[in-house]
Parts: sequence; C-alpha cells; structure tokens
Amino acid sequence: MEWLLTPGPVRLHPKALEALARPQLHHRTEPAREVFLKARDLLKKAFQTQGEVLVLTGSGTLAMEALVHNLFSPGERVLVPVYGKFSERFAEIAESAGLAVDRWELPYGEVPSPEGVARPGYRGLLLVHSETSTGALVDLPALAKAFKEANPEGLVGADMVTSLLVREVALEAWGVDAAASGSQKGLMCPPGLGFVALSPTALEALRPRGYYYDLSRELKAQGEGESAWTPAINLVGAVAAVLEEVVPRLPEHLALKAWQNGLLYQVGEELGLRPVPKVASPAVAAFYLPEGIPYRAVKEAFAQRGAVIAGGQGPLKGKIFRLSLMGHYQRYEAFGVAALFKEAFADILPTS
Amino acid sequence: MEWLLTPGPVRLHPKALEALARPQLHHRTEPAREVFLKARDLLKKAFQTQGEVLVLTGSGTLAMEALVHNLFSPGERVLVPVYGKFSERFAEIAESAGLAVDRWELPYGEVPSPEGVARPGYRGLLLVHSETSTGALVDLPALAKAFKEANPEGLVGADMVTSLLVREVALEAWGVDAAASGSQKGLMCPPGLGFVALSPTALEALRPRGYYYDLSRELKAQGEGESAWTPAINLVGAVAAVLEEVVPRLPEHLALKAWQNGLLYQVGEELGLRPVPKVASPAVAAFYLPEGIPYRAVKEAFAQRGAVIAGGQGPLKGKIFRLSLMGHYQRYEAFGVAALFKEAFADILPTS
Repeated sequence: MEWLLTPGPVRLHPKALEALARPQLHHRTEPAREVFLKARDLLKKAFQTQGEVLVLTGSGTLAMEALVHNLFSPGERVLVPVYGKFSERFAEIAESAGLAVDRWELPYGEVPSPEGVARPGYRGLLLVHSETSTGALVDLPALAKAFKEANPEGLVGADMVTSLLVREVALEAWGVDAAASGSQKGLMCPPGLGFVALSPTALEALRPRGYYYDLSRELKAQGEGESAWTPAINLVGAVAAVLEEVVPRLPEHLALKAWQNGLLYQVGEELGLRPVPKVASPAVAAFYLPEGIPYRAVKEAFAQRGAVIAGGQGPLKGKIFRLSLMGHYQRYEAFGVAALFKEAFADILPTS
Repeated sequence: MEWLLTPGPVRLHPKALEALARPQLHHRTEPAREVFLKARDLLKKAFQTQGEVLVLTGSGTLAMEALVHNLFSPGERVLVPVYGKFSERFAEIAESAGLAVDRWELPYGEVPSPEGVARPGYRGLLLVHSETSTGALVDLPALAKAFKEANPEGLVGADMVTSLLVREVALEAWGVDAAASGSQKGLMCPPGLGFVALSPTALEALRPRGYYYDLSRELKAQGEGESAWTPAINLVGAVAAVLEEVVPRLPEHLALKAWQNGLLYQVGEELGLRPVPKVASPAVAAFYLPEGIPYRAVKEAFAQRGAVIAGGQGPLKGKIFRLSLMGHYQRYEAFGVAALFKEAFADILPTS
C-alpha cells in the first residue's frame, strides 16, 4: 500500500531506510558507540531534558513498564486518569507492578482536568500526553502543576509515544519527571525501540528493578554508549539519522505536523464528520463513523486508493476511524491525502 | 569493517537486508499477519517442536527472562550449572525472578556432566546449549535425560541463542521443554527479536506473568499472526525471509557451519593456539592468547585487515580471543577468513 495513514507504525523517513541498508555493526565497537551516543544526545534535545534518555530494545509498552517499575515501589499510591486505550494500559501496567492504583475513568475522547488531579495522598500521576486511541491531547504542564501542588513529593510519568517529534514536549519545564516513547511514531522509524526519558529528579528516585528493564543497569552502560543487553543497533542508527535531520529544524517540523493534522480535520468538517476528541492531538485525526456506515466500508474505500487507515479500539471499536500523517509526509503529499480522503468519502456518502 | 567475525551480531544475510529495505507494514494488516505466521511456522521447524514459538520484540536476554518468569514460580528450586557468561546470566535472571537457585559453578570452558545434574528435588534445570563466552557446547539430550530421571516433574529450559540454525536443535526429542534464542546470531538478521520456543509440556505449565513479557498473552495474539504489543515487524519480515532460504536446506547449512568453525580451529592448531572449550560449539572458535601477547595486539592485527573480532568476557577477559563465521559466510569466504587469520598471526608471532 502506498499511503500508510495509521497512527504508528508510519511511513518511514528515507534516512531511516538508508541507515537500515548498512552492513551490521557490532554494538561494542567505536562506530556503534558513536551512533548510540548521538541518538541519546539528540533524544535529550527532543524531550527537552537535562536528565537522561535511555534506549531500550522493545516496544513503547516496554518503556512504559520500565518507567513504572523503576520509579515506583509496590504498594505506593498512584492516580491514573483513564481516557483511552493507552491510559488504560498505563493503569494495567501499574496494577501489574503491584502499585495501589486509583483509576479515574473518563469517557473516551475527553481529557482529565487539572482540578481532577489536584488530589493529595499520591506518590505518582500517570498520564498519556497524546491519547492515540481517541486523538485527544492533554494539557500536561497544567496537570503536572495541579498534581504537584497537592503532592509536593509526587512524580509525574507521561506516555509521549505519539507526541515526541509531533508536538513540543519539555520534561522539566512542564513538571514531568519521566516519559516513555518509541521509534515507530513521530520518529518515522520502524518499531523496535522504546525510550525512557528521566528528569534529574527521576534519576534520583530510580531504584534497581527486574532484569531486562532495569534502568539503573542501563544508565551505567548507556553513559558509555553501550547498553546492558544486545541493542537493536541498526534501529538506533536509523533513529540517530532521522533525529539529525529533524531536531535542528524542530519548530518547522512541528508546525508542519500541526498543519497536516489540521488539514485532515478540515476535510472531515467539510464532509460533515464529527471529530472524536474535544482537544485534538496533532498525531492523529479521529472521526465518528457517519450514521449507518460500517467501519469496513470506510477502510475499503481508502484501501481501493492504496491507503491503510485505523479503526477504533476498546469501546470505540466499530464507532470511529482514524487517519494520521505522523509519518514522513511532506506538504504536497498531505494535499494528496486530503484529496484521497474526499474521494473515498464520495464513494461512501452518495451526494444528496 | 568488511569482515564481521564477532559471535553476534553477525554479517547479515542478503535476504534480511532486502526485507529491511521494504516500506513499513502496519502490524495489524493481512500482509503483516502472513509474515508473522510464516516466521513462526519456520521457527517451529528450526526448533523442531510441535509446540509453539513466540516472537518477542527485545533481545535474547528478554527471551531468557520471559522463559524463566512464565514457567517457574518464586520459591521453586532450579539447578543452574554456571560455565560461562551466559549460563551466569541465566542464574542471575532466575535469582531476580525469586526462584531458589542452586548454582553449580564450573571453570569457564568446561561443561556440566549428566551425572552432575542427576540430582533430585528440582523443579527446573537451566542450561546454555552453546556457551558463546567460551565456545563450549553441552550435550543437551544427555543432560535433560539425566535430570528428568531424577526429577520426573522437572522442566528443562535452554538458551539456544547461538545454536539455533548453527547446530541441530530438537525440543521434544531432546527432552527440552523451553528454549530462548534471538535474531542476530544463526539467523543472520539484525538484533531486536527474541524467540521463546515452548514444547507441549511447557505450554501446559505456562502461567500468566508480568506485562510486557507475559507469554500467555502473546500466545493468544500470536496464534492469529499478531502480537500483544507493537512488534518489530520489519525484523520479523527479515527473519521470515532468511528462514525461507535456510530451513528447506538445513542439513547442508548446518554442515557448512560445522565445517567453517572447524576450519578456524584447524588454523588455530597450525598456529599453535590452545582452544578454550573441551567440547567445541560450531558457533564460535575461542583460543587462549599466546604467552605475552595482549588482546589489543590481536584485535589490532585483525582490524588492520578489515576484521572485527571478540575478546574474552568475565574471568576470561584479557585471556582469550574469539572468531565466528556464524553470519552469512559462504564456503570460499571462509577460506578467505582463514587466510586473514594466518596473516594476522604472522604479524603477531614473529617466525622463529
């Protein structure tokens, strides 16, 4: 399929493909160390942290689990607002780590308010920045501030899986202590790497945990450009190559991503489609299916034009569809996708 | 460097590079499911199991940890012979999982005897088939048999990281219940995927554990060609492509690997080098450094000829060096490497 419009994995950046075509590096050699250190250095800039970013071989879910296990201890109370599939996953991970989890259940599509998280008695707050399952974006700085006023010793952990390199993120400036992300979203690389960003505060709170996802062990190894276990070094090379292109011109890149996603919503509005989120993330455009139209018909109309889209997840399954230009799409390609979107719906919604 | 002679990562198979150059697939689409099912089907053949092989996004260490956590419960007694760095890692993982671990410490280079593991009172035995740190190969079928005679309810878990596709392996026929491996060794693909093979007996013993490495959850998803979490699907494609080439002609492939490693030992013998292992694995040739020659000098002599080799690990650091043709090397290339090996040592050992 020519047009991969799913909210991750996404259409690859040409620099990623170029890096993946190179011969195998051994991870304990100088050229590999250089690549590893370059990727970590650029990731620190992307997360806007003076702390550390650790690269894990695994998916974003591993990074979320590593964040939870290494920062919190069994029995500690954490607040987890649930407003989509990925915030639900955060709650499940915290529960499986033995934390005392208070879920604050919200309807899918909504986002938590600062007032709602200003509740004392918590060691942590876990939030998904860009809730890919609904297309909603939460106001991380406002939420972190409200939570920390009620819990001065509290730590804020964020899932930035679909916000990193898609929308501005800033760890310490926003009061976020740790964040998880992955290679297959805004980084326009194949899936297979997870990232955990740790603020200086989080680094102090770190405790050795488990084995494969023990961040204390990784911290020691990655300071020298290595990793505790054999890393997916080819992917680290792809990530470094893409970051080298994007990070120096990040403001323009983020503006492009915002404009592109806005274009998708604009087309949706013209077509009379109702958006799912109240506050939209630039990572994905999510729309309710028109009355009486099954998801299958929408998927098929896009597939006939060479495009792969995504449906709903959890309670939104069969109720919504989602499109994303988070991957490597330039400005004119976005216009092309807008035209494709309109034509697909011309098939689906017969003109009156 | 032209000649990657490390015992993993290894020189890539051209089919792997070809697969990695393809556009991104979304993992929840039909073409991705086909690739995933093909990889799993061929991996079952490679492991010779009627059970299941689960593909995890992570390194071989993750696969080892998943094997230990999902088959054994905290407090259960396991016997772990330690005869190299990777058997030591197995012991560490079992300890971090809260098992009651009896380590049987052997000198690096030796292997455990069947008599030594014929000790009753254990729920499990953990063995490394090909101990990459020393080049030793253990007699898995004999060890599994001796252990199970003493422990009829016992389970045998094996690290087959550097034996899969390098030497014959056979799960049920050998009395092995579960095995872990990875993509960057005999499979000649980049690092980033771990495999856990489970015999029918192991499948019955499986208990839900953790989150990211919960094999019960993976089993459910992977039966349908998906995975619980976003998989490194590009690498799964590379693995499927290589297996399609190698599995149908596995006996010839294994014979080539055995011959190639034998050639390295033959050159070593001509040069008067002492091999490290008593029983050699075909995955790697390990030699003690000649008296008075530092590892740096050997590494440098190979590097000058475009070759990357490996040194010793743990107590063998600074005492040995290792060469491997586990990667994509054809017959004539092995002769080339033999010549390179001889020339490198002509520099190191001045003729008398």
